[in-house]
This record gives sequence, C-alpha cells and structure tokens, in this order.
Amino acid sequence: MKNSEKFMKKALKQAIKAYDLGEVPIGAVIVKDGAILASAYNKRNASNCATKHAEIIAIEKACKKVKDWRLEGAEMYVTLEPCPMCAGAIVNARIKKVYFGAYERKSGAVLSNHQLLFHGGLNHKTEAEGGVLENECSTLLKKFFESKRKSE
Amino acid sequence: MKNSEKFMKKALKQAIKAYDLGEVPIGAVIVKDGAILASAYNKRNASNCATKHAEIIAIEKACKKVKDWRLEGAEMYVTLEPCPMCAGAIVNARIKKVYFGAYERKSGAVLSNHQLLFHGGLNHKTEAEGGVLENECSTLLKKFFESKRKSE
Repeated sequence: MKNSEKFMKKALKQAIKAYDLGEVPIGAVIVKDGAILASAYNKRNASNCATKHAEIIAIEKACKKVKDWRLEGAEMYVTLEPCPMCAGAIVNARIKKVYFGAYERKSGAVLSNHQLLFHGGLNHKTEAEGGVLENECSTLLKKFFESKRKSE
Repeated sequence: MKNSEKFMKKALKQAIKAYDLGEVPIGAVIVKDGAILASAYNKRNASNCATKHAEIIAIEKACKKVKDWRLEGAEMYVTLEPCPMCAGAIVNARIKKVYFGAYERKSGAVLSNHQLLFHGGLNHKTEAEGGVLENECSTLLKKFFESKRKSE
C-alpha cells in the first residue's frame, strides 16, 4: 500500500466517526515527517459552528501541538476535496501538500474549481493530488446522503 | 454618518486592539437586526493558530451566541478585504452581506480576486461592498507595517 493510501485510510476512519454522529462524513489527518500530528472529523452540526469542518479542526489541533501557525513541511489527507474556506486555511497554514479522496465538482476549491492552493497572489503555494482511495471516500458520502434521504 | 460607517468604526476599534498587541491590525464585527452579535480582531500570532483571523473568530463567536452555524440575515463589517479562507467561511456561515474597508489587491478574495462570495457552485451567495472608511482602515495597516519595518 502506498503511503498516501495508508494515511487516507486514517482520514476515512475519522470520516466514519462523523458518519456515526449524523454529520456529513468527512475526515482529515495532518502528517509531518511520517507521523500523524492531528486527526479530525466534520463537526459542523454538533458544534453549531460554520467553521468546524474536518480540515479546520485538524489545522487548529496541529497548530496547537507545534505551537506555531506555520505547518511548513506538513501534509494533509482529507476524504473530500476542500471547500474554499478550507483550501484558504490550508494555504494560510503553509501546508506543503494536500491529498484528497473524492472530488467535489460543485464547490471543491483545489482542483475542481478555483485552484485556490496555487493562486499567484499568495505568499505560499500548496501542492495537491486528488483521487486517493476515491471509491471508498465517495461511497461513504453517497451512503450517508442516501440514508438521509430515506429518513426524510 | 451612514450605518455602514458606524459599524466599520466598531470594526476599526477591534483592529486597534490587534495593533496594540503587535498583530496585523484587522478587526471585524457581525451585526444582525441592527445590533452587534460578535466582535473580534486578528490573533494569528498570539494564538499560534493559522485560522484565527478576525473574521473567523467573529463567526465562531456569533455561531456560539445564536447556537446555529447559519448566520442568515447577518452582516459582517471588516477593516480589510477577506482572504480566501475568510471569504469561504463567510459564505459557509450564510452571511447576507460583507462590508469591508481597505482593498487587498494581492490576496483579497471578495472583489479583488476570486469573488468567492458569488461563485456559481455555492449554495449561498453573499453580497459585498468595499471601500467603507477605506482611508482610516488602510492608514492603520500602513502605520503598522511601517513601524514593523523600522523595528527590524
């Protein structure tokens, strides 16, 4: 198994925690020098807070751990392509590379739409790779939305 | 004095708090039905956290106050044009309108660059107006960066 798949599996485990709580199942881990710095899952509903996506919580935990707002050299693994807020936070935290699972064709801001990680006006650029364990990541999301529709 | 200027003055007061702590002087307030829901200033350095821009802290405080991640009908007043992260958070929180002071021509993501608030792929669109008390807002930022350069 590739390293990127190994860490995406960890992000998927986080996403399943969100699923079990009835949150949109998205998980993220931040890795530096081969070790996990922070893990998180989406808590938008549970926290009643618009900013509490998996990526933001993971960045906040990692910053707290290293006592620095700069996460230089770190990588993020996230099960869904980040939205504009999260893509902006990833660049602000100077993360080196983002691996994501499923593509978010409508509002994804990494490869699908704005390509916010590589914008010329920014002081830092973050590399990106999409489609890591894409099937597992998108299947979990589909299953969640199908079960939501059934229960409505 | 226009209402927008009245609330921008409140945001400027917050920015001055950041200035006094040696943080890039940016302040924000969130207003609903004519009353201030939340006020905040940039704390990126003090908090050692990449996400702690004035706008994000203000959104988190406002969500906590109304116990909802949706800030529908709310307006934000912020002294500098929001970055991609903050513009994304503003849309995610379903804020109705953003008024900002100084333009950020390099990385501003509301009117200067990506126009993230009105992107077709999003479920919500936020209105925007730039240049409210622009001189006061940009003068404070210039003063801050000049004093930083002198002390280096």
